[in-house]
Amino acid sequence: MTRKHFVKEFHIAPGSDFRLRELDPGYKGKYRKHEALHKIEDLRIKMGDLQQRLFAERKRSLLIVLQGLDAAGKDGVIKHVIGSMNPDGCHIANFKEPTPQELAHDFLWRVEAQTPARGEVAIFNRSHYEDVLIVRVHNLVPKSVWSKRYDQINDFEDRLIQNGTHILKFFLHISKEEQLRRFEQRLDDPGRRWKISDADYKERERWDDYLRAYEDVFARCNSNEAPWFVIPADHKWFRDLAISEIIVSTMVEMKFQVPQPTVDIAEIRRKYHSAAAEGKSHRRSGKRRRT
Amino acid sequence: MTRKHFVKEFHIAPGSDFRLRELDPGYKGKYRKHEALHKIEDLRIKMGDLQQRLFAERKRSLLIVLQGLDAAGKDGVIKHVIGSMNPDGCHIANFKEPTPQELAHDFLWRVEAQTPARGEVAIFNRSHYEDVLIVRVHNLVPKSVWSKRYDQINDFEDRLIQNGTHILKFFLHISKEEQLRRFEQRLDDPGRRWKISDADYKERERWDDYLRAYEDVFARCNSNEAPWFVIPADHKWFRDLAISEIIVSTMVEMKFQVPQPTVDIAEIRRKYHSAAAEGKSHRRSGKRRRT
Repeated sequence: MTRKHFVKEFHIAPGSDFRLRELDPGYKGKYRKHEALHKIEDLRIKMGDLQQRLFAERKRSLLIVLQGLDAAGKDGVIKHVIGSMNPDGCHIANFKEPTPQELAHDFLWRVEAQTPARGEVAIFNRSHYEDVLIVRVHNLVPKSVWSKRYDQINDFEDRLIQNGTHILKFFLHISKEEQLRRFEQRLDDPGRRWKISDADYKERERWDDYLRAYEDVFARCNSNEAPWFVIPADHKWFRDLAISEIIVSTMVEMKFQVPQPTVDIAEIRRKYHSAAAEGKSHRRSGKRRRT
Repeated sequence: MTRKHFVKEFHIAPGSDFRLRELDPGYKGKYRKHEALHKIEDLRIKMGDLQQRLFAERKRSLLIVLQGLDAAGKDGVIKHVIGSMNPDGCHIANFKEPTPQELAHDFLWRVEAQTPARGEVAIFNRSHYEDVLIVRVHNLVPKSVWSKRYDQINDFEDRLIQNGTHILKFFLHISKEEQLRRFEQRLDDPGRRWKISDADYKERERWDDYLRAYEDVFARCNSNEAPWFVIPADHKWFRDLAISEIIVSTMVEMKFQVPQPTVDIAEIRRKYHSAAAEGKSHRRSGKRRRT
Protein backbone atom coordinates (compact mmCIF):
# COMPACT_ATOMS: atom_id res chain seq x y z
CA MET A 1 0.00 0.00 0.00
CA THR A 2 1.80 3.12 -1.17
CA ARG A 3 1.04 6.62 0.03
CA LYS A 4 -0.33 7.78 -3.31
CA HIS A 5 -2.83 4.95 -3.38
CA PHE A 6 -6.03 6.53 -2.09
CA VAL A 7 -5.21 9.97 -3.45
CA LYS A 8 -5.36 8.48 -6.92
CA GLU A 9 -8.19 6.08 -6.26
CA PHE A 10 -10.73 8.48 -4.80
CA HIS A 11 -9.91 11.81 -6.40
CA ILE A 12 -12.52 12.57 -9.00
CA ALA A 13 -10.72 13.39 -12.22
CA PRO A 14 -11.40 17.06 -13.02
CA GLY A 15 -13.54 17.38 -16.10
CA SER A 16 -14.84 13.82 -15.85
CA ASP A 17 -18.52 13.04 -15.85
CA PHE A 18 -18.45 11.22 -12.51
CA ARG A 19 -21.63 9.65 -11.16
CA LEU A 20 -21.89 8.62 -7.53
CA ARG A 21 -23.52 5.30 -8.36
CA GLU A 22 -20.21 4.31 -9.99
CA LEU A 23 -18.64 3.99 -6.52
CA ASP A 24 -19.91 1.44 -4.01
CA PRO A 25 -20.27 3.07 -0.55
CA GLY A 26 -19.51 -0.35 0.96
CA TYR A 27 -16.17 -0.60 -0.86
CA LYS A 28 -13.22 -1.60 1.29
CA GLY A 29 -10.74 -2.80 -1.29
CA LYS A 30 -8.49 -5.57 -0.06
CA TYR A 31 -8.32 -4.19 3.46
CA ARG A 32 -9.33 -5.83 6.68
CA LYS A 33 -10.55 -3.92 9.66
CA HIS A 34 -7.92 -5.17 12.07
CA GLU A 35 -4.99 -4.19 9.84
CA ALA A 36 -6.65 -0.91 8.96
CA LEU A 37 -6.95 0.11 12.62
CA HIS A 38 -3.22 -0.44 13.08
CA LYS A 39 -2.46 1.51 9.94
CA ILE A 40 -4.71 4.35 11.14
CA GLU A 41 -2.72 4.49 14.38
CA ASP A 42 0.50 4.90 12.38
CA LEU A 43 -1.08 7.58 10.26
CA ARG A 44 -2.34 9.45 13.34
CA ILE A 45 1.21 9.72 14.63
CA LYS A 46 2.51 10.87 11.24
CA MET A 47 -0.30 13.39 10.95
CA GLY A 48 0.41 14.85 14.36
CA ASP A 49 4.06 15.23 13.45
CA LEU A 50 3.32 16.82 10.08
CA GLN A 51 0.86 19.25 11.61
CA GLN A 52 3.54 20.33 14.05
CA ARG A 53 5.83 21.04 11.09
CA LEU A 54 3.13 23.00 9.25
CA PHE A 55 2.62 25.01 12.41
CA ALA A 56 6.36 25.60 12.78
CA GLU A 57 6.76 26.71 9.17
CA ARG A 58 3.87 29.13 9.54
CA LYS A 59 3.82 29.97 5.84
CA ARG A 60 1.05 27.82 4.45
CA SER A 61 -2.17 26.33 5.76
CA LEU A 62 -4.46 23.38 5.18
CA LEU A 63 -8.22 23.50 4.73
CA ILE A 64 -10.15 20.23 5.03
CA VAL A 65 -13.78 20.30 3.92
CA LEU A 66 -16.06 17.51 5.14
CA GLN A 67 -19.38 17.01 3.40
CA GLY A 68 -21.90 14.22 3.42
CA LEU A 69 -25.54 13.48 4.00
CA ASP A 70 -26.92 13.13 7.52
CA ALA A 71 -25.15 10.35 9.50
CA ALA A 72 -22.40 10.05 6.88
CA GLY A 73 -19.77 10.30 9.62
CA LYS A 74 -18.40 13.84 9.56
CA ASP A 75 -18.19 14.07 13.36
CA GLY A 76 -16.59 10.64 13.46
CA VAL A 77 -13.83 11.71 11.09
CA ILE A 78 -13.11 14.78 13.19
CA LYS A 79 -12.89 12.70 16.34
CA HIS A 80 -10.94 9.75 15.00
CA VAL A 81 -8.77 11.32 12.29
CA ILE A 82 -8.36 15.00 13.08
CA GLY A 83 -8.07 14.25 16.80
CA SER A 84 -4.45 13.29 16.18
CA MET A 85 -3.47 16.89 15.54
CA ASN A 86 -2.49 19.36 18.22
CA PRO A 87 -5.59 21.42 19.00
CA ASP A 88 -3.41 24.51 19.34
CA GLY A 89 -2.90 24.69 15.57
CA CYS A 90 -6.17 23.18 14.55
CA HIS A 91 -9.46 24.99 14.05
CA ILE A 92 -12.81 23.23 13.64
CA ALA A 93 -15.68 25.20 12.13
CA ASN A 94 -19.19 23.75 12.31
CA PHE A 95 -21.41 25.34 9.71
CA LYS A 96 -24.99 24.98 10.81
CA GLU A 97 -28.17 26.70 9.72
CA PRO A 98 -27.11 30.33 9.12
CA THR A 99 -28.06 32.91 11.74
CA PRO A 100 -30.05 35.99 10.72
CA GLN A 101 -26.82 37.99 10.84
CA GLU A 102 -25.09 35.49 8.58
CA LEU A 103 -28.02 35.46 6.18
CA ALA A 104 -27.83 39.25 6.00
CA HIS A 105 -24.38 38.85 4.37
CA ASP A 106 -23.33 37.01 1.25
CA PHE A 107 -22.92 33.26 1.70
CA LEU A 108 -19.11 33.36 1.90
CA TRP A 109 -18.99 35.97 4.66
CA ARG A 110 -19.19 33.52 7.53
CA VAL A 111 -16.87 31.12 5.71
CA GLU A 112 -14.15 33.71 5.22
CA ALA A 113 -14.04 34.25 8.98
CA GLN A 114 -13.18 30.58 9.53
CA THR A 115 -10.41 30.12 6.99
CA PRO A 116 -7.11 28.87 8.43
CA ALA A 117 -4.36 31.29 9.42
CA ARG A 118 -0.83 30.58 8.21
CA GLY A 119 0.42 27.51 10.03
CA GLU A 120 -3.09 26.35 10.86
CA VAL A 121 -5.31 23.47 9.84
CA ALA A 122 -8.99 24.32 9.53
CA ILE A 123 -11.65 21.65 9.33
CA PHE A 124 -15.01 22.61 7.89
CA ASN A 125 -17.79 20.38 9.26
CA ARG A 126 -20.16 21.20 6.40
CA SER A 127 -19.14 24.28 4.46
CA HIS A 128 -19.92 26.83 1.78
CA TYR A 129 -20.95 23.89 -0.39
CA GLU A 130 -24.23 23.66 1.53
CA ASP A 131 -25.13 26.85 -0.33
CA VAL A 132 -25.32 24.87 -3.57
CA LEU A 133 -26.61 21.67 -1.93
CA ILE A 134 -29.39 21.99 0.66
CA VAL A 135 -30.08 25.50 -0.63
CA ARG A 136 -30.56 24.16 -4.12
CA VAL A 137 -32.49 21.02 -3.19
CA HIS A 138 -34.92 23.01 -1.05
CA ASN A 139 -35.07 26.08 -3.31
CA LEU A 140 -34.03 28.35 -0.47
CA VAL A 141 -32.84 30.95 -2.97
CA PRO A 142 -33.74 31.31 -6.67
CA LYS A 143 -31.72 29.35 -9.22
CA SER A 144 -30.42 32.64 -10.60
CA VAL A 145 -28.65 33.13 -7.26
CA TRP A 146 -27.30 29.66 -6.48
CA SER A 147 -26.22 28.94 -10.02
CA LYS A 148 -23.68 31.79 -9.85
CA ARG A 149 -22.18 30.37 -6.68
CA TYR A 150 -20.08 27.67 -8.34
CA ASP A 151 -17.89 30.30 -9.97
CA GLN A 152 -17.90 32.38 -6.80
CA ILE A 153 -16.71 29.36 -4.83
CA ASN A 154 -13.98 28.68 -7.39
CA ASP A 155 -12.78 32.27 -7.22
CA PHE A 156 -12.84 32.17 -3.43
CA GLU A 157 -10.89 28.92 -3.25
CA ASP A 158 -8.44 30.14 -5.91
CA ARG A 159 -7.62 33.15 -3.79
CA LEU A 160 -7.04 30.98 -0.73
CA ILE A 161 -4.78 28.70 -2.76
CA GLN A 162 -2.80 31.62 -4.17
CA ASN A 163 -2.27 32.79 -0.62
CA GLY A 164 -0.82 29.52 0.58
CA THR A 165 -3.81 27.41 1.61
CA HIS A 166 -3.97 23.79 0.49
CA ILE A 167 -7.51 22.50 0.14
CA LEU A 168 -8.84 18.94 0.44
CA LYS A 169 -12.54 18.26 0.04
CA PHE A 170 -14.09 14.99 1.16
CA PHE A 171 -17.53 13.66 0.37
CA LEU A 172 -18.42 10.84 2.76
CA HIS A 173 -20.37 8.49 0.56
CA ILE A 174 -22.83 6.27 2.42
CA SER A 175 -25.64 4.17 1.05
CA LYS A 176 -29.26 4.93 1.73
CA GLU A 177 -29.52 1.62 3.62
CA GLU A 178 -26.54 2.43 5.81
CA GLN A 179 -28.05 5.79 6.69
CA LEU A 180 -31.23 4.03 7.77
CA ARG A 181 -29.21 1.63 9.93
CA ARG A 182 -27.45 4.56 11.60
CA PHE A 183 -30.78 6.30 12.17
CA GLU A 184 -32.00 3.11 13.83
CA GLN A 185 -29.00 3.09 16.14
CA ARG A 186 -29.95 6.63 17.14
CA LEU A 187 -33.43 5.42 18.05
CA ASP A 188 -31.85 2.99 20.46
CA ASP A 189 -29.60 5.62 22.06
CA PRO A 190 -31.30 7.76 24.74
CA GLY A 191 -28.51 10.33 24.39
CA ARG A 192 -29.28 10.89 20.74
CA ARG A 193 -32.87 10.01 20.03
CA TRP A 194 -34.26 13.28 21.40
CA LYS A 195 -33.27 15.06 18.21
CA ILE A 196 -34.80 12.61 15.78
CA SER A 197 -37.53 14.15 13.70
CA ASP A 198 -39.80 13.02 10.94
CA ALA A 199 -37.97 15.52 8.74
CA ASP A 200 -34.81 13.39 8.92
CA TYR A 201 -36.71 10.60 7.21
CA LYS A 202 -38.59 12.88 4.83
CA GLU A 203 -35.22 14.21 3.68
CA ARG A 204 -34.42 10.70 2.45
CA GLU A 205 -37.00 11.18 -0.28
CA ARG A 206 -34.67 13.77 -1.77
CA TRP A 207 -31.69 11.41 -1.74
CA ASP A 208 -31.31 11.43 -5.53
CA ASP A 209 -31.70 15.22 -5.67
CA TYR A 210 -28.80 15.53 -3.24
CA LEU A 211 -26.63 13.14 -5.21
CA ARG A 212 -27.33 15.14 -8.36
CA ALA A 213 -26.47 18.38 -6.57
CA TYR A 214 -23.23 16.80 -5.35
CA GLU A 215 -22.40 15.56 -8.85
CA ASP A 216 -22.73 19.12 -10.11
CA VAL A 217 -20.39 20.30 -7.38
CA PHE A 218 -17.84 17.67 -8.41
CA ALA A 219 -18.20 18.73 -12.03
CA ARG A 220 -17.95 22.45 -11.43
CA CYS A 221 -15.77 22.98 -8.33
CA ASN A 222 -13.07 20.34 -8.59
CA SER A 223 -9.47 20.80 -9.66
CA ASN A 224 -6.07 19.34 -8.91
CA GLU A 225 -5.45 22.27 -6.57
CA ALA A 226 -8.75 21.97 -4.70
CA PRO A 227 -9.67 18.33 -5.26
CA TRP A 228 -12.84 16.50 -4.29
CA PHE A 229 -12.42 13.00 -2.94
CA VAL A 230 -15.39 10.67 -2.76
CA ILE A 231 -14.80 8.31 0.15
CA PRO A 232 -16.72 5.05 0.48
CA ALA A 233 -18.03 5.49 4.02
CA ASP A 234 -20.35 2.62 4.90
CA HIS A 235 -17.40 1.11 6.79
CA LYS A 236 -16.22 3.65 9.31
CA TRP A 237 -12.76 2.15 9.58
CA PHE A 238 -12.26 2.22 5.83
CA ARG A 239 -13.44 5.83 5.69
CA ASP A 240 -10.95 6.81 8.42
CA LEU A 241 -8.13 4.89 6.72
CA ALA A 242 -8.71 6.50 3.33
CA ILE A 243 -9.02 10.04 4.68
CA SER A 244 -5.99 9.67 6.96
CA GLU A 245 -3.89 8.43 4.05
CA ILE A 246 -4.95 11.27 1.80
CA ILE A 247 -4.28 13.94 4.41
CA VAL A 248 -0.88 12.50 5.34
CA SER A 249 0.09 12.06 1.71
CA THR A 250 -0.86 15.67 0.96
CA MET A 251 1.04 17.01 3.94
CA VAL A 252 4.15 14.97 3.05
CA GLU A 253 4.11 16.51 -0.41
CA MET A 254 3.90 19.99 1.07
CA LYS A 255 7.50 19.47 2.28
CA PHE A 256 7.33 21.75 5.28
CA GLN A 257 10.44 23.73 6.10
CA VAL A 258 10.78 23.91 9.85
CA PRO A 259 12.65 27.10 10.72
CA GLN A 260 16.12 26.87 12.18
CA PRO A 261 16.32 27.46 15.91
CA THR A 262 17.15 31.07 16.65
CA VAL A 263 19.54 29.90 19.34
CA ASP A 264 22.61 27.67 19.33
CA ILE A 265 21.14 24.35 20.48
CA ALA A 266 24.54 23.01 21.56
CA GLU A 267 25.09 26.09 23.67
CA ILE A 268 21.64 25.83 25.25
CA ARG A 269 22.40 22.22 26.03
CA ARG A 270 25.72 23.08 27.63
CA LYS A 271 24.38 26.08 29.47
CA TYR A 272 21.19 24.63 30.92
CA HIS A 273 21.29 20.86 30.58
CA SER A 274 24.82 19.99 31.66
CA ALA A 275 25.24 17.79 34.74
CA ALA A 276 26.17 20.79 36.86
CA ALA A 277 23.26 22.93 35.68
CA GLU A 278 20.74 20.17 35.95
CA GLY A 279 21.74 18.56 39.22
CA LYS A 280 19.72 15.58 40.27
CA SER A 281 17.32 15.72 37.36
CA HIS A 282 20.13 14.82 34.99
CA ARG A 283 20.50 11.40 36.48
CA ARG A 284 16.91 10.61 35.66
CA SER A 285 16.78 12.12 32.19
CA GLY A 286 16.34 9.87 29.18
CA LYS A 287 14.71 7.14 31.20
CA ARG A 288 11.19 8.18 30.43
CA ARG A 289 9.52 9.21 27.23
CA ARG A 290 5.82 9.41 27.96
CA THR A 291 5.50 9.21 31.70
CA MET B 1 -11.58 4.37 43.72
CA THR B 2 -14.78 6.35 44.02
CA ARG B 3 -15.83 9.16 41.75
CA LYS B 4 -15.50 11.85 44.40
CA HIS B 5 -11.93 10.87 45.13
CA PHE B 6 -9.87 13.36 43.14
CA VAL B 7 -12.46 16.11 43.42
CA LYS B 8 -11.88 16.10 47.15
CA GLU B 9 -8.18 15.40 47.04
CA PHE B 10 -7.09 18.16 44.66
CA HIS B 11 -9.63 20.91 45.19
CA ILE B 12 -8.00 23.67 47.18
CA ALA B 13 -10.25 24.43 50.14
CA PRO B 14 -11.61 27.96 49.67
CA GLY B 15 -10.20 30.29 52.28
CA SER B 16 -7.26 28.02 53.06
CA ASP B 17 -3.71 29.27 52.96
CA PHE B 18 -2.55 26.71 50.40
CA ARG B 19 1.09 26.65 49.32
CA LEU B 20 2.16 24.81 46.19
CA ARG B 21 5.17 23.24 47.90
CA GLU B 22 2.70 21.27 50.03
CA LEU B 23 1.82 19.12 47.02
CA ASP B 24 4.44 16.93 45.31
CA PRO B 25 4.21 17.33 41.51
CA GLY B 26 5.43 13.74 41.23
CA TYR B 27 2.54 12.40 43.33
CA LYS B 28 0.71 9.42 41.90
CA GLY B 29 -1.03 8.02 44.94
CA LYS B 30 -1.47 4.26 44.84
CA TYR B 31 -2.01 4.16 41.11
CA ARG B 32 -0.03 2.34 38.49
CA LYS B 33 0.32 3.56 34.96
CA HIS B 34 -1.08 0.46 33.32
CA GLU B 35 -4.29 0.46 35.37
CA ALA B 36 -4.60 4.21 35.02
CA LEU B 37 -4.53 4.02 31.23
CA HIS B 38 -7.41 1.54 31.29
CA LYS B 39 -9.34 3.73 33.69
CA ILE B 40 -8.72 6.76 31.46
CA GLU B 41 -10.22 4.84 28.53
CA ASP B 42 -13.37 4.15 30.58
CA LEU B 43 -13.57 7.78 31.59
CA ARG B 44 -13.16 8.94 27.99
CA ILE B 45 -16.22 6.94 27.01
CA LYS B 46 -18.23 8.28 29.94
CA MET B 47 -17.12 11.83 29.18
CA GLY B 48 -18.18 11.54 25.55
CA ASP B 49 -21.57 10.28 26.62
CA LEU B 50 -22.04 13.00 29.23
CA GLN B 51 -21.05 15.71 26.80
CA GLN B 52 -23.68 14.45 24.40
CA ARG B 53 -26.26 14.78 27.17
CA LEU B 54 -25.10 18.31 28.05
CA PHE B 55 -25.41 19.18 24.38
CA ALA B 56 -28.86 17.63 24.19
CA GLU B 57 -30.09 19.45 27.27
CA ARG B 58 -28.81 22.76 25.90
CA LYS B 59 -29.53 24.62 29.13
CA ARG B 60 -26.18 24.75 30.87
CA SER B 61 -22.55 24.77 29.82
CA LEU B 62 -19.15 23.76 31.08
CA LEU B 63 -16.03 25.90 31.12
CA ILE B 64 -12.69 24.18 31.72
CA VAL B 65 -9.71 26.43 32.41
CA LEU B 66 -6.22 24.97 31.94
CA GLN B 67 -3.30 26.81 33.43
CA GLY B 68 0.30 25.85 34.08
CA LEU B 69 3.84 26.92 33.45
CA ASP B 70 5.51 26.24 30.12
CA ALA B 71 5.57 22.48 29.28
CA ALA B 72 3.14 21.65 32.09
CA GLY B 73 1.02 19.65 29.65
CA LYS B 74 -1.96 21.81 28.71
CA ASP B 75 -1.91 20.70 25.07
CA GLY B 76 -1.53 17.10 26.21
CA VAL B 77 -4.66 17.30 28.36
CA ILE B 78 -6.65 18.74 25.47
CA LYS B 79 -5.50 15.97 23.18
CA HIS B 80 -5.81 13.02 25.56
CA VAL B 81 -8.71 14.03 27.79
CA ILE B 82 -10.86 16.54 25.92
CA GLY B 83 -10.38 14.62 22.67
CA SER B 84 -13.05 12.20 23.88
CA MET B 85 -15.78 14.80 23.43
CA ASN B 86 -17.65 15.43 20.21
CA PRO B 87 -15.96 18.41 18.55
CA ASP B 88 -19.34 19.67 17.44
CA GLY B 89 -20.23 20.75 20.99
CA CYS B 90 -16.74 21.53 22.15
CA HIS B 91 -14.89 24.79 21.74
CA ILE B 92 -11.17 25.23 22.39
CA ALA B 93 -9.86 28.74 22.94
CA ASN B 94 -6.09 29.30 22.93
CA PHE B 95 -5.23 32.53 24.67
CA LYS B 96 -1.88 33.72 23.42
CA GLU B 97 -0.14 37.07 23.62
CA PRO B 98 -2.94 39.61 23.14
CA THR B 99 -3.21 41.35 19.78
CA PRO B 100 -3.17 45.17 19.58
CA GLN B 101 -6.96 45.07 19.13
CA GLU B 102 -7.37 42.88 22.21
CA LEU B 103 -5.06 45.14 24.22
CA ALA B 104 -7.17 48.11 23.22
CA HIS B 105 -10.05 46.55 25.19
CA ASP B 106 -10.28 45.53 28.81
CA PHE B 107 -8.68 42.17 29.61
CA LEU B 108 -11.97 40.24 29.73
CA TRP B 109 -13.17 41.40 26.31
CA ARG B 110 -11.50 38.63 24.35
CA VAL B 111 -12.42 36.11 27.04
CA GLU B 112 -16.11 36.95 26.92
CA ALA B 113 -16.13 36.16 23.21
CA GLN B 114 -14.96 32.60 23.91
CA THR B 115 -17.33 31.61 26.72
CA PRO B 116 -19.38 28.48 26.05
CA ALA B 117 -22.87 28.70 24.59
CA ARG B 118 -25.65 26.72 26.29
CA GLY B 119 -25.00 23.04 25.65
CA GLU B 120 -21.32 23.63 24.90
CA VAL B 121 -18.06 22.79 26.58
CA ALA B 122 -15.36 25.45 26.27
CA ILE B 123 -11.74 24.74 27.07
CA PHE B 124 -9.47 27.65 27.81
CA ASN B 125 -5.85 26.85 27.01
CA ARG B 126 -4.48 29.60 29.22
CA SER B 127 -7.10 32.16 30.18
CA HIS B 128 -7.98 35.46 31.83
CA TYR B 129 -5.78 34.32 34.72
CA GLU B 130 -2.70 35.21 32.68
CA ASP B 131 -3.70 38.80 33.35
CA VAL B 132 -2.82 38.33 37.01
CA LEU B 133 0.05 35.91 36.36
CA ILE B 134 2.50 36.77 33.56
CA VAL B 135 1.19 40.33 33.60
CA ARG B 136 1.98 40.61 37.29
CA VAL B 137 5.30 38.76 37.22
CA HIS B 138 6.55 40.93 34.34
CA ASN B 139 4.94 44.17 35.51
CA LEU B 140 3.13 44.57 32.20
CA VAL B 141 0.57 46.83 33.85
CA PRO B 142 0.82 48.74 37.14
CA LYS B 143 -0.13 46.96 40.34
CA SER B 144 -3.03 49.38 40.75
CA VAL B 145 -4.50 47.81 37.60
CA TRP B 146 -3.82 44.09 38.07
CA SER B 147 -4.70 44.08 41.74
CA LYS B 148 -8.30 45.02 40.90
CA ARG B 149 -8.59 42.11 38.49
CA TYR B 150 -9.16 39.41 41.11
CA ASP B 151 -12.51 40.92 42.01
CA GLN B 152 -13.28 41.58 38.36
CA ILE B 153 -12.59 37.94 37.58
CA ASN B 154 -14.80 36.80 40.44
CA ASP B 155 -17.64 39.02 39.25
CA PHE B 156 -17.20 37.78 35.69
CA GLU B 157 -17.21 34.12 36.74
CA ASP B 158 -20.17 34.69 39.07
CA ARG B 159 -22.20 36.02 36.20
CA LEU B 160 -21.32 33.03 34.05
CA ILE B 161 -22.28 30.68 36.88
CA GLN B 162 -25.59 32.47 37.47
CA ASN B 163 -26.33 32.02 33.80
CA GLY B 164 -25.81 28.27 33.83
CA THR B 165 -22.08 27.78 33.25
CA HIS B 166 -20.20 25.32 35.44
CA ILE B 167 -16.54 26.19 35.86
CA LEU B 168 -13.57 23.93 36.57
CA LYS B 169 -10.08 25.39 36.83
CA PHE B 170 -7.00 23.20 36.68
CA PHE B 171 -3.44 24.13 37.54
CA LEU B 172 -1.03 21.57 36.08
CA HIS B 173 1.63 21.38 38.73
CA ILE B 174 5.04 20.25 37.45
CA SER B 175 8.39 20.43 39.17
CA LYS B 176 11.16 22.66 37.95
CA GLU B 177 13.23 19.56 37.20
CA GLU B 178 10.45 17.99 35.14
CA GLN B 179 10.13 21.18 33.10
CA LEU B 180 13.84 21.03 32.36
CA ARG B 181 13.51 17.40 31.26
CA ARG B 182 10.69 18.33 28.92
CA PHE B 183 12.69 21.23 27.53
CA GLU B 184 15.52 18.78 26.87
CA GLN B 185 13.17 16.50 24.97
CA ARG B 186 12.26 19.51 22.81
CA LEU B 187 15.93 20.04 22.04
CA ASP B 188 16.04 16.51 20.65
CA ASP B 189 12.93 16.97 18.52
CA PRO B 190 13.52 18.71 15.16
CA GLY B 191 9.80 19.48 14.91
CA ARG B 192 9.83 21.46 18.12
CA ARG B 193 13.30 22.80 18.74
CA TRP B 194 12.95 25.69 16.29
CA LYS B 195 10.92 27.61 18.83
CA ILE B 196 13.26 27.21 21.78
CA SER B 197 14.62 30.49 23.00
CA ASP B 198 16.91 31.62 25.74
CA ALA B 199 13.89 33.38 27.21
CA ASP B 200 12.26 30.00 28.00
CA TYR B 201 15.15 29.28 30.32
CA LYS B 202 15.39 32.81 31.68
CA GLU B 203 11.74 32.54 32.65
CA ARG B 204 12.71 29.71 35.00
CA GLU B 205 14.45 32.26 37.19
CA ARG B 206 10.99 33.62 37.98
CA TRP B 207 9.66 30.20 38.98
CA ASP B 208 8.97 31.22 42.57
CA ASP B 209 7.36 34.49 41.47
CA TYR B 210 4.95 32.51 39.34
CA LEU B 211 4.12 30.11 42.16
CA ARG B 212 3.42 33.06 44.44
CA ALA B 213 1.21 34.66 41.80
CA TYR B 214 -0.68 31.36 41.43
CA GLU B 215 -1.07 31.03 45.18
CA ASP B 216 -2.70 34.46 45.26
CA VAL B 217 -5.06 33.35 42.50
CA PHE B 218 -6.00 30.28 44.53
CA ALA B 219 -6.54 32.45 47.59
CA ARG B 220 -8.61 35.12 45.86
CA CYS B 221 -10.45 33.45 42.96
CA ASN B 222 -11.44 30.05 44.29
CA SER B 223 -14.87 28.91 45.47
CA ASN B 224 -16.96 25.78 45.53
CA GLU B 225 -18.79 27.07 42.47
CA ALA B 226 -15.63 27.93 40.48
CA PRO B 227 -13.05 25.66 42.09
CA TRP B 228 -9.33 25.49 41.46
CA PHE B 229 -7.78 22.04 41.33
CA VAL B 230 -4.04 21.64 41.64
CA ILE B 231 -3.08 18.53 39.69
CA PRO B 232 0.25 16.78 40.23
CA ALA B 233 1.47 16.69 36.63
CA ASP B 234 4.98 15.29 36.50
CA HIS B 235 3.39 11.99 35.46
CA LYS B 236 1.32 12.63 32.37
CA TRP B 237 -0.86 9.56 32.91
CA PHE B 238 -1.67 10.56 36.48
CA ARG B 239 -2.50 14.09 35.37
CA ASP B 240 -4.88 12.74 32.69
CA LEU B 241 -6.47 10.32 35.15
CA ALA B 242 -7.11 12.97 37.79
CA ILE B 243 -8.50 15.54 35.36
CA SER B 244 -10.71 12.99 33.61
CA GLU B 245 -12.14 11.85 36.94
CA ILE B 246 -12.87 15.38 38.07
CA ILE B 247 -14.57 16.34 34.81
CA VAL B 248 -16.68 13.17 34.70
CA SER B 249 -17.61 13.48 38.35
CA THR B 250 -18.69 17.08 37.84
CA MET B 251 -20.75 16.24 34.77
CA VAL B 252 -22.44 13.32 36.53
CA GLU B 253 -23.50 15.66 39.31
CA MET B 254 -24.95 18.10 36.79
CA LYS B 255 -27.67 15.46 36.13
CA PHE B 256 -28.42 16.42 32.56
CA GLN B 257 -32.02 16.18 31.43
CA VAL B 258 -32.07 14.97 27.86
CA PRO B 259 -35.22 16.31 26.21
CA GLN B 260 -37.94 13.90 25.19
CA PRO B 261 -38.06 13.11 21.50
CA THR B 262 -40.55 15.34 19.71
CA VAL B 263 -41.77 12.33 17.78
CA ASP B 264 -43.24 9.00 18.76
CA ILE B 265 -40.19 6.72 18.61
CA ALA B 266 -42.33 3.59 18.31
CA GLU B 267 -44.17 5.11 15.40
CA ILE B 268 -40.95 6.15 13.68
CA ARG B 269 -39.70 2.62 14.16
CA ARG B 270 -42.83 1.12 12.67
CA LYS B 271 -43.04 3.59 9.85
CA TYR B 272 -39.44 3.62 8.66
CA HIS B 273 -37.65 0.66 10.19
CA SER B 274 -40.14 -2.16 9.76
CA ALA B 275 -39.07 -5.09 7.59
CA ALA B 276 -41.21 -3.83 4.73
CA ALA B 277 -39.90 -0.28 4.90
CA GLU B 278 -36.33 -1.30 5.31
CA GLY B 279 -36.11 -4.18 2.87
CA LYS B 280 -32.76 -5.84 2.61
CA SER B 281 -31.03 -3.58 5.09
CA HIS B 282 -33.17 -5.00 7.88
CA ARG B 283 -31.56 -8.37 7.60
CA ARG B 284 -28.17 -6.88 8.32
CA SER B 285 -29.16 -4.50 11.07
CA GLY B 286 -27.97 -5.07 14.59
CA LYS B 287 -25.00 -7.10 13.45
CA ARG B 288 -22.57 -4.24 13.55
CA ARG B 289 -21.97 -1.54 16.08
CA ARG B 290 -18.84 0.24 14.99
CA THR B 291 -18.10 -0.95 11.48
